[in-house]
Amino acid sequence: MSVVVRNIPRAPQAVIDGLARAGVATVHEAQGRKGCLHSYMRPIYTGAQVAGSAVTISAPPGDNWMLHVAIEQLQPGDLLVLAPTSPCDNGYFGDLLATSAMARGCRGLIIDAGVRDVRDLKAMGFPVWSKAVSAQGTVKETPGSVNVPIVCAGQAIDAGDVIVADDDGVVVVKQAEAEAVLIAANKRLAAEEAKRTRLAAGELGLDIYNMRPALAAKGLKYV
Amino acid sequence: MSVVVRNIPRAPQAVIDGLARAGVATVHEAQGRKGCLHSYMRPIYTGAQVAGSAVTISAPPGDNWMLHVAIEQLQPGDLLVLAPTSPCDNGYFGDLLATSAMARGCRGLIIDAGVRDVRDLKAMGFPVWSKAVSAQGTVKETPGSVNVPIVCAGQAIDAGDVIVADDDGVVVVKQAEAEAVLIAANKRLAAEEAKRTRLAAGELGLDIYNMRPALAAKGLKYV
Amino acid sequence: MSVVVRNIPRAPQAVIDGLARAGVATVHEAQGRKGCLHSYMRPIYTGAQVAGSAVTISAPPGDNWMLHVAIEQLQPGDLLVLAPTSPCDNGYFGDLLATSAMARGCRGLIIDAGVRDVRDLKAMGFPVWSKAVSAQGTVKETPGSVNVPIVCAGQAIDAGDVIVADDDGVVVVKQAEAEAVLIAANKRLAAEEAKRTRLAAGELGLDIYNMRPALAAKGLKYV
Amino acid sequence: MSVVVRNIPRAPQAVIDGLARAGVATVHEAQGRKGCLHSYMRPIYTGAQVAGSAVTISAPPGDNWMLHVAIEQLQPGDLLVLAPTSPCDNGYFGDLLATSAMARGCRGLIIDAGVRDVRDLKAMGFPVWSKAVSAQGTVKETPGSVNVPIVCAGQAIDAGDVIVADDDGVVVVKQAEAEAVLIAANKRLAAEEAKRTRLAAGELGLDIYNMRPALAAKGLKYV
Amino acid sequence: MSVVVRNIPRAPQAVIDGLARAGVATVHEAQGRKGCLHSYMRPIYTGAQVAGSAVTISAPPGDNWMLHVAIEQLQPGDLLVLAPTSPCDNGYFGDLLATSAMARGCRGLIIDAGVRDVRDLKAMGFPVWSKAVSAQGTVKETPGSVNVPIVCAGQAIDAGDVIVADDDGVVVVKQAEAEAVLIAANKRLAAEEAKRTRLAAGELGLDIYNMRPALAAKGLKYV
Amino acid sequence: MSVVVRNIPRAPQAVIDGLARAGVATVHEAQGRKGCLHSYMRPIYTGAQVAGSAVTISAPPGDNWMLHVAIEQLQPGDLLVLAPTSPCDNGYFGDLLATSAMARGCRGLIIDAGVRDVRDLKAMGFPVWSKAVSAQGTVKETPGSVNVPIVCAGQAIDAGDVIVADDDGVVVVKQAEAEAVLIAANKRLAAEEAKRTRLAAGELGLDIYNMRPALAAKGLKYV
Repeated sequence: MSVVVRNIPRAPQAVIDGLARAGVATVHEAQGRKGCLHSYMRPIYTGAQVAGSAVTISAPPGDNWMLHVAIEQLQPGDLLVLAPTSPCDNGYFGDLLATSAMARGCRGLIIDAGVRDVRDLKAMGFPVWSKAVSAQGTVKETPGSVNVPIVCAGQAIDAGDVIVADDDGVVVVKQAEAEAVLIAANKRLAAEEAKRTRLAAGELGLDIYNMRPALAAKGLKYV
Repeated sequence: MSVVVRNIPRAPQAVIDGLARAGVATVHEAQGRKGCLHSYMRPIYTGAQVAGSAVTISAPPGDNWMLHVAIEQLQPGDLLVLAPTSPCDNGYFGDLLATSAMARGCRGLIIDAGVRDVRDLKAMGFPVWSKAVSAQGTVKETPGSVNVPIVCAGQAIDAGDVIVADDDGVVVVKQAEAEAVLIAANKRLAAEEAKRTRLAAGELGLDIYNMRPALAAKGLKYV
Repeated sequence: MSVVVRNIPRAPQAVIDGLARAGVATVHEAQGRKGCLHSYMRPIYTGAQVAGSAVTISAPPGDNWMLHVAIEQLQPGDLLVLAPTSPCDNGYFGDLLATSAMARGCRGLIIDAGVRDVRDLKAMGFPVWSKAVSAQGTVKETPGSVNVPIVCAGQAIDAGDVIVADDDGVVVVKQAEAEAVLIAANKRLAAEEAKRTRLAAGELGLDIYNMRPALAAKGLKYV
Repeated sequence: MSVVVRNIPRAPQAVIDGLARAGVATVHEAQGRKGCLHSYMRPIYTGAQVAGSAVTISAPPGDNWMLHVAIEQLQPGDLLVLAPTSPCDNGYFGDLLATSAMARGCRGLIIDAGVRDVRDLKAMGFPVWSKAVSAQGTVKETPGSVNVPIVCAGQAIDAGDVIVADDDGVVVVKQAEAEAVLIAANKRLAAEEAKRTRLAAGELGLDIYNMRPALAAKGLKYV
Repeated sequence: MSVVVRNIPRAPQAVIDGLARAGVATVHEAQGRKGCLHSYMRPIYTGAQVAGSAVTISAPPGDNWMLHVAIEQLQPGDLLVLAPTSPCDNGYFGDLLATSAMARGCRGLIIDAGVRDVRDLKAMGFPVWSKAVSAQGTVKETPGSVNVPIVCAGQAIDAGDVIVADDDGVVVVKQAEAEAVLIAANKRLAAEEAKRTRLAAGELGLDIYNMRPALAAKGLKYV
Repeated sequence: MSVVVRNIPRAPQAVIDGLARAGVATVHEAQGRKGCLHSYMRPIYTGAQVAGSAVTISAPPGDNWMLHVAIEQLQPGDLLVLAPTSPCDNGYFGDLLATSAMARGCRGLIIDAGVRDVRDLKAMGFPVWSKAVSAQGTVKETPGSVNVPIVCAGQAIDAGDVIVADDDGVVVVKQAEAEAVLIAANKRLAAEEAKRTRLAAGELGLDIYNMRPALAAKGLKYV
């Protein structure tokens, strides 16, 4: 039952980088308000904004053996994405694994569990989005799998899907949809710019979006 | 059932500003240890300390339409205070709405739900206290109400009540009590200053507050 | 039932300081992956890394009277460690108590409950690891005990045990084991340094730790 | 700050009894989908369905003194409704207090905290809806208030409001609206009866409520 | 973005019924310890043990419109499986929808949200496994989708997958694997029977499974 | 680090049985309101009321190997008490282990994790108090320890301590204090009987306990 899939599809690097620039909230809207991981996934430090191809890991609770296996599968621009097979907040990952992952060009870690050595990780500039920070270590007794489909923090993720992460959280874009989502995201960013100017000048969303008739039709009363 | 109340009472601006300077913990003590919102309400960035008159919003889960309506009701010095009608962690509010709210003099947002674009909000200096950070967007399908009584994070809040928020969390002061609470808060701050000096010099609270007899009477033993 | 134990054993200061330098994750591994407090215990600001002898406090929910009693028992280099007798997130501790504790050489507070005045505490450089930040105050009506055995955030702690705390959380080292744990921790740090260099150069953990045969034996397949 | 309000308004008993028969879900819908307490409020045993006038209690965490005070204020047909001033799961109430409350005609307890002696309470037929079951006892050191406005499990409740509770949870009806809500609830029950017959016969809600055009207009596609 | 898939694959009814008899824990083991939904999914009453083909529903938070659409897609022996697009504990489903679903042969509901009318549902014998019980109702404003892939309580579920549910919780079996899993489950049940007899007679698992050498090899000491 | 302690002290059986009859709430009060495990520990079925000597188990997350080891250490009248070394809700225990434990006279299980086969356990009359019900199974890869001190659901427990459990939850009595606690508990039960009669007759706790002067002294006002 324990497998490592060696060849995975990846979206073009330029698309991935474009999605990183668009950011999580915009990407999520651009693909129809879907793909957000649960909001308990928080960055260990603020300010990072990254995207990468998912190298997925399915690991037993309290066992981080598969991280070593997954690191060998990394290509520059990838992100590690780990889901335990049952809820666990142990610290699966620390500065040594980060050193190894960075040596292979890894851009960060998304983990529905815990992480440790967070001060070192911040100093190294290795961003992590996790459910917990925990010094509690793990064992290396039971294999899991790498690059199999997983569910991480409420979202189904396939190896090679594009993961975008920033201070707002984490969103997954299916690999085959990445290019279309980027186009929609960029369109959205351009439209937002125009709206921002009008709103900053004091115009109201009620008027810009012509909401007053619809609100009245649904029964809103001013008293 | 959906209404917008246009005229709300407000406390004098000088009183509101005084309460902001006193801070949440002091204000809470000054009014008899009451009014604190649940401790899960956390600032999206540290260091902000504000107060304002509450423009209240009752909104359906996952629907942020009423924020546009509420923004029109803002006066300079107000705070938006949103409670969903059932628990929800969606990101109701982001940088565009903040741009609009700031254009009307809004000092921040208190929301018993989620917020997004937090990096932008920090850059703009628009403080938010929320239950969650989430990129998950909302719809605009069902009206709610503005400036009606709400319960936000465990506290009953009326439109025009004074909200004080800082790194310790959020407290509500009833509009009619704001002036009296400020006087009590300032008295408290003065008294604390004297105590701080004595404590810093090594005197013990046990002696300053004469606690030893009461502790002995309640049976405390030293062994 | 309310007692204050005045004389407690303490580990040598040099050992305590060595454990602080080693940090929580390393100390936890060095003593056999034990002693971590629950991961909900978070620092109120990042970057502090301390160790000290535990002055323990058992306090009723919503009653901080015993903190005043405990402060008198502090010696330079100690840490306050408070566990409520039932779950509570009230703000038991703020800047005045911190002023008093610092005047006696206290290095910080570990509290399985809430804390307040966190902006002041950060400015003063008084670190706290807590379950919550809450402005909600407490009463002084019911005594508890000081320097008795407690369970704090899932770990049994005796007065005089060494507590190590940093951005990864909090770990307890039994007072009698502190020296041995420090030796093991320092050995571990030295070994990690060598591994870090090899991993940074691109060598894989799979090879450094010779994991491939064991993984194959447990059935891992590459496809 | 500690008060007991002796005279409170109450809705007519026949109205209260009618609301009990309608049940929580129907009453909640009949008053416009409002008034439900948080879903963590669960019955200690299934099958009870009651309504009564709220005798409200604001109590400190871990202190049940006010329950004795509140029991003197009970009239036959009332319900006790307790909210602690900060989150607490202690067992405030057990079989002795229930014996006393039943002797005065009390119909049950709604408590945003813990309860104990639940086997006895079930045997006595005294229903409780609570956040927790906990044997952890309380002290009697700090007064609170009786029949003041409280927020219990997310809802603002005034003394004399009608509380309806069954296996679905708890809902509050403002005292002045109770009669109108009962009329709406009874209308709703009658309408549901007719729908139930049609649905049981295999007719679809899609057709009974004529939903197909609206769904198509909003873009629903069958594939 | 809102679609209803009308034709879905289903496992043979005899296989589904066999999986129901095997029960959740056995099925989960038989397929390699995978497929369990989060343990917060609890039955609204004990004793039900069912299996069925999943008719999946993706619904907005607080909006139950799609349940009406899904019911039309039910065939006898199916189970409804609903996942909201963001966390929500509203009561999406009650006795009227259950009446309609039963009229079409539905065997129950799995819902990562709330349910209401639970006393009626129990009386009707319509089992539900849910995250919450809540009387809080929903709106019908925003379409979702039916028979699309969803993630429900941590598991990816496709329309037509077999869902097994009993007092231990809920497990999903991929439709294509259902027959093989049933064979493995039945083998397991037979093996357990033999072990049960030996254990009941006082033989130890340590001896039946020959665990003593492995434990000694891993360093277990008796003192 | 993995040990099994074979000889443990036990309280006299008559004392243990007396504590079972007194029940959790009374025992907890009789020993000074201490010893309750967290209120999330719930019985898998209602009505059981047991006591026994603790055979303690420290187990890794997701690994139930030590249960087999612990069962060999059971004597008639014992209870198994398991704490995972980090939070875990897996189903460590089911009907086969219960069969084995019952064959050795075990009275039940207290587990700060999950349990499964709960329908069978109820049918067998084997009571369990647990944090979760979960079909998710465990591995047998990493040893833990038996009869070492543990912290279970917030309480420090030594092997041989008396555990009392009923519908109110679980309480631990130190083995050396068991006899004194029983005497205090029985005294308490006798006193409660007298009070119950007076309360049932309509006398108020305010008068029986003479609370009115103390309440007035603390400032309670009737309005």
